[in-house]
Amino acid sequence: MNFYTRKWVKPEDLNPNGTLFGGTLLRWIDEEAVIYAIVQLGNPHVVTKFISEINFVSSAKQGDIIELGIQAISFGKTSITLCCEVRNKITKKSILTIDRLVFVNVNKNGVPTEHGKTEITYAYR
Amino acid sequence: MNFYTRKWVKPEDLNPNGTLFGGTLLRWIDEEAVIYAIVQLGNPHVVTKFISEINFVSSAKQGDIIELGIQAISFGKTSITLCCEVRNKITKKSILTIDRLVFVNVNKNGVPTEHGKTEITYAYR
Amino acid sequence: MNFYTRKWVKPEDLNPNGTLFGGTLLRWIDEEAVIYAIVQLGNPHVVTKFISEINFVSSAKQGDIIELGIQAISFGKTSITLCCEVRNKITKKSILTIDRLVFVNVNKNGVPTEHGKTEITYAYR
Amino acid sequence: MNFYTRKWVKPEDLNPNGTLFGGTLLRWIDEEAVIYAIVQLGNPHVVTKFISEINFVSSAKQGDIIELGIQAISFGKTSITLCCEVRNKITKKSILTIDRLVFVNVNKNGVPTEHGKTEITYAYR
Amino acid sequence: MNFYTRKWVKPEDLNPNGTLFGGTLLRWIDEEAVIYAIVQLGNPHVVTKFISEINFVSSAKQGDIIELGIQAISFGKTSITLCCEVRNKITKKSILTIDRLVFVNVNKNGVPTEHGKTEITYAYR
Amino acid sequence: MNFYTRKWVKPEDLNPNGTLFGGTLLRWIDEEAVIYAIVQLGNPHVVTKFISEINFVSSAKQGDIIELGIQAISFGKTSITLCCEVRNKITKKSILTIDRLVFVNVNKNGVPTEHGKTEITYAYR
Repeated sequence: MNFYTRKWVKPEDLNPNGTLFGGTLLRWIDEEAVIYAIVQLGNPHVVTKFISEINFVSSAKQGDIIELGIQAISFGKTSITLCCEVRNKITKKSILTIDRLVFVNVNKNGVPTEHGKTEITYAYR
Repeated sequence: MNFYTRKWVKPEDLNPNGTLFGGTLLRWIDEEAVIYAIVQLGNPHVVTKFISEINFVSSAKQGDIIELGIQAISFGKTSITLCCEVRNKITKKSILTIDRLVFVNVNKNGVPTEHGKTEITYAYR
Repeated sequence: MNFYTRKWVKPEDLNPNGTLFGGTLLRWIDEEAVIYAIVQLGNPHVVTKFISEINFVSSAKQGDIIELGIQAISFGKTSITLCCEVRNKITKKSILTIDRLVFVNVNKNGVPTEHGKTEITYAYR
Repeated sequence: MNFYTRKWVKPEDLNPNGTLFGGTLLRWIDEEAVIYAIVQLGNPHVVTKFISEINFVSSAKQGDIIELGIQAISFGKTSITLCCEVRNKITKKSILTIDRLVFVNVNKNGVPTEHGKTEITYAYR
Repeated sequence: MNFYTRKWVKPEDLNPNGTLFGGTLLRWIDEEAVIYAIVQLGNPHVVTKFISEINFVSSAKQGDIIELGIQAISFGKTSITLCCEVRNKITKKSILTIDRLVFVNVNKNGVPTEHGKTEITYAYR
Repeated sequence: MNFYTRKWVKPEDLNPNGTLFGGTLLRWIDEEAVIYAIVQLGNPHVVTKFISEINFVSSAKQGDIIELGIQAISFGKTSITLCCEVRNKITKKSILTIDRLVFVNVNKNGVPTEHGKTEITYAYR
């Protein structure tokens, strides 16, 4: 799995207990996964369809650095399925893993459309 | 299920395709569920532990009004399990449902602590 | 008065003195009142016209839960007048009340337009 | 009245109708007025106590530039009263005026404290 | 140099070390300089082209008030060059200076366009 | 140069002309560079000291994906100097390059402190 995007946990990202707010983390994951899907499918029109269960193993505190890893695990006709791991770069602990995030390739009117991809490509890099 | 918090979908909440950004919606859900858990357990120190799978059935567009419904479904010794539905008040469609969101009652040091609750109460209202 | 939307006071909502920033609270109230007006008038094109005086009775601190109550008090031809109360769910204190918030029903070009409503309805619930 | 802070109306500041969101404007006003009060009283611990009625005369659209004018109009023992005008620099129209915004000088524990000021000073400039 | 826009350093503006986040300050400067350029050129379509080196001399902490000063120093056919100073109003220290910020006057399609201005004007004030 | 963090340009990131707001981009760069410095120096207390000139070569529009590349180019006793490139992954164009960003390693009181590093390490990966 490749880890790209990194975040620095700032006061604006904390819950009132002083740890990383879960909702903020979910927002970061969804954005990172969409970006991965767009890059793989070569189409900017991609929507979140399904997220499998999320188990919060550990958290992060102010000043920690988080990194988000995403990898494609299968390709449907109009969809792509990714897995995700979030790690704390300072404590080296896993924060959470998600087995499946499914995104659907849509056209400009939002209708699911075949993407023609069957394997991981790195066309953009 | 009671529906409390409502959101007005503004430009800042949109993805580049012009529909409600999934990550923003997840952030709203996590905050609303934490609030429900805090009110039920009577303790502000509550952390997100687990979220079961999420199926995005429909979306919302700019100007739509979203409402978030949460209900407690079971009580553990240190945890509480909630379910969630998000609806679009304008189109009257369901946007997503989540069967189980588990929150853990912790003390000021973040250690799981018994909450002593066994049923839904409305002490605060 | 019905209390719907609830907020969890997070670090991002605080002023430098460590209490809820007044400007953030005003932003929450305006959004909640617009949502109430839209739901009552059945029209998403509604603009804030007037807010009567605001007396800040108490504040809130990090981790508190705030709830916003809005109720329609009168209907004009093109307008609706609401009242508002904000409460702190943890301390059970009132934070502020506003006697009158006036919203105007406009068409797509921003011109005031008759809404045809004369009483509180709950068509959406 | 001196006009200091200026804002550029960006997509993140709009309501779903495409005009400046009223709640965002109120947030800007509260921050600007607090800053003025702090500079006048020479004390960073100042809280919003009262805002007189607000009449939204015109609005602003994306790309417009807004400027906020504040002036002290009277000094109490522990308080300061300001007035405010918001103008649209592009259309040269007034957006709103507020006759009285009252801020209270507090100590580090939040208790109202005499500030010893009786007139507008420009000690900081 | 005229100092207009002022900011109150709130928790949302801090880095994890508890001082003003450099990236937030850069965002404030860019917005203030664009506003100055728009007001001088009388055209809302202006883009950032160049920023000369930035030397962070001091910082700011929570509760400090920052003010941003901008002045035009030269006019090209399609561009305007500004200089900038940011000061801490509480400590009276300079935070940083930037010798040159260049903005380009563009038409609605983003193409550089002559602005016809040759000196500082205050048409809007 | 390694490209890690990626951003999806959403409506909240746009200036009123509909392109990526320069101030938002500067904020992203500063955060990414700080993260790189922290990971290299193994110390979370790092502050921005100097940024060399910035030349905006091209921009990005809504829906584009931006990636940020950072690399260490030299090590001082208490500082680290980085270079930066921002690319548009969709158009494959360079958006800007910055030759030198200098960060200083400080202790908990903000005093510059020797970091003992002399070359790029990847201890955290």
